[in-house]
Amino acid sequence: MKNKKEIFAGIIIIGNEILSGRTQDTNTSTISIWLNSLGIRVQEVRVIPDNEEIIINTVNKLRKKFNYVFTTGGIGPTHDDITAESISKAFNLKYGPHKEAMHILEKYYKPGDFTEGRKKMAHMPENANLILNPTSGAPGFNVENVFCLPGVPSILKSMLGGIGHMLVGGEPIISHTINLRTVESEIAKSLTKVQNDNKEVDIGSYPFFKAGKLGVALVIRCSNQSKIDKCIIDILNFVKEKNIEIIEKN
Amino acid sequence: MKNKKEIFAGIIIIGNEILSGRTQDTNTSTISIWLNSLGIRVQEVRVIPDNEEIIINTVNKLRKKFNYVFTTGGIGPTHDDITAESISKAFNLKYGPHKEAMHILEKYYKPGDFTEGRKKMAHMPENANLILNPTSGAPGFNVENVFCLPGVPSILKSMLGGIGHMLVGGEPIISHTINLRTVESEIAKSLTKVQNDNKEVDIGSYPFFKAGKLGVALVIRCSNQSKIDKCIIDILNFVKEKNIEIIEKN
Repeated sequence: MKNKKEIFAGIIIIGNEILSGRTQDTNTSTISIWLNSLGIRVQEVRVIPDNEEIIINTVNKLRKKFNYVFTTGGIGPTHDDITAESISKAFNLKYGPHKEAMHILEKYYKPGDFTEGRKKMAHMPENANLILNPTSGAPGFNVENVFCLPGVPSILKSMLGGIGHMLVGGEPIISHTINLRTVESEIAKSLTKVQNDNKEVDIGSYPFFKAGKLGVALVIRCSNQSKIDKCIIDILNFVKEKNIEIIEKN
Repeated sequence: MKNKKEIFAGIIIIGNEILSGRTQDTNTSTISIWLNSLGIRVQEVRVIPDNEEIIINTVNKLRKKFNYVFTTGGIGPTHDDITAESISKAFNLKYGPHKEAMHILEKYYKPGDFTEGRKKMAHMPENANLILNPTSGAPGFNVENVFCLPGVPSILKSMLGGIGHMLVGGEPIISHTINLRTVESEIAKSLTKVQNDNKEVDIGSYPFFKAGKLGVALVIRCSNQSKIDKCIIDILNFVKEKNIEIIEKN
């Protein structure tokens, strides 16, 4: 069986609040896990400030580099929400009221409540495709391979379901984890050998402390189940040999 | 009083486990908050895979772009820990056993426990400055303006104290937050005016949901307290005018 093409994505987290440390980004992991399930691998994440020039340059760089780009943040009503206008400039598209988005927000708010600030949330690159927002009305948007989502994690999460059909994924990446009661340096040499013997499988090794005890999580990732199985057998061989306790395997 | 020069930093988070969504990065906010206190602003974060070429390119780009660069991850004993060797290549330095690091680890482990895997953690770019690790022995290192730290958050945190004296900071960035019982679109127009009237102050607006109620956090950041004070007065003026409840101010 021939492998399907690998599909890669980049994520751009837009927001001074992440760079200042005030807010802990959680959108990266939400988007990455969701993309994995579609067979799309996130290859790079950039966190950048609310700065037009930087947004334009970053979007233009990453949209050429990856199959898909996802941005989060900066599509609300306030002065620091400059993502939609910056994306318009990145694509040399007119920025202005989007008819369909205007219509959605008009229906969403009570008459008289559709203020100037709220109208701003319907301003977008010309002819952008909308990404519907089941939580709070204001839609995200898509231009070519770039998908623009809000920064608020719960709203972002609720919008991902509406994007899946717009993406062409590759083979889903399968991931298995083996948690061992050991330390990395005990298994480093054996693990290097297993990685060399299983070049198409990606083995990650992550030390952890849990309930006062040390352990190592081995994460085996590949789009091919039988290659993962072979790799797991090789790992379990040296684990048995070294008499290491397996805490968990899934 | 003349302003001290602004000092900028970039952070490179190295690790497939962050890109796959398996692990939630928390090091960005730890490093950012600590740098803020030294008057250093984080201007960009990149999350990249454990890939030598990508690490070399990213480090070489960011170290020219910012005053300081911090990397996290990839300095342990296993096959996927390739940061130290990649940094050596980025700087065209020899990669090999670091005398002082070897000495530290020799003392840290019991005789006979200083295995090959553990020796790898003392392999570094030639003549790198060590960053001491009070938690688990294995030091980080510094070459020119690049500081390499481990990925495990608790260990990373414990090492920051040993770096402060190696950095020259700017004026500390002061940050004030006003939490309002309102929604962004109610205040967007007034806030834009305040931002335009206070150009040297950075005003961020962040909607939140707490205990089932909506609110907006306004974060005012600047290195000059009197400019922040002036901006706060302008904000409180429109807050009073619009009869908006102030939930918290600090």
